[in-house]
Amino acid sequence: MNPKPSPCYDPRNFKALTFHDALPRFREGTDSPRCYLERCIETIKEREPIVKAFVALNEAGARAAADESTARWKGGRPLSAIDGMPIGIKDLLETKDMPTQMGCEAFRGNFPKRDNAAVWALREAGAVILGKTTTAELGGSHPPATTNPFDPACTAGGSSSGSAAAVGARMIPAAIGTQVGGSIIRPASYCGNIALKPTQGGINRGERQATSMSTHGVHAGCIKDMWQVAIEIAERAGGDRGCVGLLGPRQPPPAQKPGRLIVLETSGWEQLDACSKSTFETLLESIQLAGIQLLRRADNPLVEKLERAIADAASICNAITGWENRWYQRNLINETPGGVSERAKTALAKAEGMTIGDYRAALIDREAAQACYSAIAALADAVITLSSPGPAPLWAGDQPGKPLSPRPTGDPVFNFPSSMLFAPSVTMPLMAVYGMPLGAQLMGQSHEDARITGMARWIVENLAPLVAA
Amino acid sequence: MNPKPSPCYDPRNFKALTFHDALPRFREGTDSPRCYLERCIETIKEREPIVKAFVALNEAGARAAADESTARWKGGRPLSAIDGMPIGIKDLLETKDMPTQMGCEAFRGNFPKRDNAAVWALREAGAVILGKTTTAELGGSHPPATTNPFDPACTAGGSSSGSAAAVGARMIPAAIGTQVGGSIIRPASYCGNIALKPTQGGINRGERQATSMSTHGVHAGCIKDMWQVAIEIAERAGGDRGCVGLLGPRQPPPAQKPGRLIVLETSGWEQLDACSKSTFETLLESIQLAGIQLLRRADNPLVEKLERAIADAASICNAITGWENRWYQRNLINETPGGVSERAKTALAKAEGMTIGDYRAALIDREAAQACYSAIAALADAVITLSSPGPAPLWAGDQPGKPLSPRPTGDPVFNFPSSMLFAPSVTMPLMAVYGMPLGAQLMGQSHEDARITGMARWIVENLAPLVAA
Repeated sequence: MNPKPSPCYDPRNFKALTFHDALPRFREGTDSPRCYLERCIETIKEREPIVKAFVALNEAGARAAADESTARWKGGRPLSAIDGMPIGIKDLLETKDMPTQMGCEAFRGNFPKRDNAAVWALREAGAVILGKTTTAELGGSHPPATTNPFDPACTAGGSSSGSAAAVGARMIPAAIGTQVGGSIIRPASYCGNIALKPTQGGINRGERQATSMSTHGVHAGCIKDMWQVAIEIAERAGGDRGCVGLLGPRQPPPAQKPGRLIVLETSGWEQLDACSKSTFETLLESIQLAGIQLLRRADNPLVEKLERAIADAASICNAITGWENRWYQRNLINETPGGVSERAKTALAKAEGMTIGDYRAALIDREAAQACYSAIAALADAVITLSSPGPAPLWAGDQPGKPLSPRPTGDPVFNFPSSMLFAPSVTMPLMAVYGMPLGAQLMGQSHEDARITGMARWIVENLAPLVAA
Repeated sequence: MNPKPSPCYDPRNFKALTFHDALPRFREGTDSPRCYLERCIETIKEREPIVKAFVALNEAGARAAADESTARWKGGRPLSAIDGMPIGIKDLLETKDMPTQMGCEAFRGNFPKRDNAAVWALREAGAVILGKTTTAELGGSHPPATTNPFDPACTAGGSSSGSAAAVGARMIPAAIGTQVGGSIIRPASYCGNIALKPTQGGINRGERQATSMSTHGVHAGCIKDMWQVAIEIAERAGGDRGCVGLLGPRQPPPAQKPGRLIVLETSGWEQLDACSKSTFETLLESIQLAGIQLLRRADNPLVEKLERAIADAASICNAITGWENRWYQRNLINETPGGVSERAKTALAKAEGMTIGDYRAALIDREAAQACYSAIAALADAVITLSSPGPAPLWAGDQPGKPLSPRPTGDPVFNFPSSMLFAPSVTMPLMAVYGMPLGAQLMGQSHEDARITGMARWIVENLAPLVAA
């Protein structure tokens, strides 16, 4: 979090890679999915040696898919508005044409030749599955080699490291990530992405029904692409088992100005560096100047009650997820003792010290927090908070002989709340601090994914991004 | 359902194999878990050639575990009240010491060397994992070779065919089954078991988080063993992710006389043969004679409303489960086209004709039925209905050149309701029809597993079983 001499991210002139705006040219024939793909591959060739966002690329398969898409656009029969979109898939999800190694030595070479339900849906919509993006080990905290596209000395965040970095580096317009604690919204914040972590159960996780808080989500360069990818999946593969899945329009929701927002501090507030805090406060001022009311913990006892209910979000989330993963991880370590990191083993040891009573207590805390969150629904249109505690921290890798860093991909402190509240969240790249991206997120009530997307769109289209001096 | 000339089941003198009553002798040293196991192995040797309840036995591992248990009992330090209990595990669940082949050709030889969370908990409690019991293919309807222990010309039911048959044949005192539609309660009814299908999420399914309606459950020879196995698992591995899990006392609940029961007919009523129906009506009369009030659809509009809400339970359940399994099954068939039965392929084709809208509609129907079920909670102590539409039907295997029988393991028509209502159910072997077992089940509201177990205990201990003339 130290000021760094080589700032390179400026949201005022950074132009993310987008896809929706290419469609008119596909129709006219002045561009094609195949040409779009070749531009992506070119950027990957240029940036990948430093960014290291991918663990596998299927260029041949992608070219064949892009050619088929090109023919469909030529014939005026695209399968969807994402037909031809090159997309990256976090390497926790199975893909029939690439290995699924989950950032874990024990899965080196694992190649199940199956498609995750969401991947299947993307192919049905004509999307071009270009590669598998890196992930922290098993979606946990042990990081991959990926670097931040705006400063290779910094982490890209995690666990959806590669998806966030590939989109931030303009290699691809969109990628699939997953979140249990803060694995979509935080790396998206660090890498200047727009991203959606849907309502719990919103996108069919298929074989990755890992825990009661895990979700698939979308990283993208713009809100329109983000929504289109999410809804094309949900219309084909729906949500998780027993869930209605992501609800909303087949096109990106129109921009909608919020009337009032609740500002959540979360327990991350105390950890903020002065510059990130003051930049966020400046953002809040500009929101107020635009005529949007803000409601903070001091203004309403229900907001204060919610802040208190999520104050222990980190320990609640870690207890729940640790317990839910424990049999899977114990089996894995028994099978392949050398194939799992010390970080994962430490987390497992903690979970194996728990009883069912500890787990039930954590579930009750989670439900109580959800009740507090429901109680604020009528007070405002949505919640706004930071997407990460400042920009991406420096990360030079584990140092031999030194204790393991507990959070090499950054701290999910601003992300545990939306995870434990099952709440949809959209992060917006609205700030630059120390020359690095910093996102703010809108959170909604369950199934308000489209609503917060429309409000995020209004904010992104109407407020000037902020650059800390 | 034809009268058969060789009736052999009489609940008045059938003595199921039980375990709890051996514990005093284990303590005294006049019996031991090792001796108990050897008696089980002897019965298996005798019955298994006809019954075919097991796909794998680990006699060496079981003997070693039984010897360790014997030493613990000798030292006065048993791990639990099921320490030393030989138990069978339905072959859908992973076991580290035996293959997991799921009754499916595509999984022949599959041996993941991992323990399902429930299996792990059983070992922690000192139970002796003796073998893997047969299952209909992937828990569906394509049957294994298992025969009914009371008449080899009849099905043992399914999909927990082997668990039900092994307990019915007195090979083992308890076995783990799983239910999505009617896969525990129906085979238990056909094989004269006591069995518990817990509240949805009651027992940790571990890697078998198959669908939104699947549950692990327990087949046993008596209520005490049934409850003890269930609670020992739940106290160690808890319930499914996000669920508090099975709640109740650490010992079997005491017998508790119900004051009033609701009689549910379900859509199975119209399919009943005259003898099964009249035997069940006689059972209801004896319940009334014992001073328990009965409430039927004609007596209360809320009961009538519930009957109507579950009238389409079969199509609702099949739509939900089909959709939820579709990506898994499509991947499997793509990988191993010859490794999956025609029955499973037919079910998949139906699911692949569905849209997300069809699935959402089925979820709404399920929720509406659950609301109707909640509404009857205060009307009575529990619900009673049959556990299957009569005793086990004849099954001679598929006939070459003839169309596939749609329900070779019997009809789950009486079981879809408890599955879709997420309701706990206990089946009791209270009747014999055509010389074959027929069960009646008590259903409770969510988390009333212990309560209905206590009421089932009262009924079993106080009402004489009925034998149709």
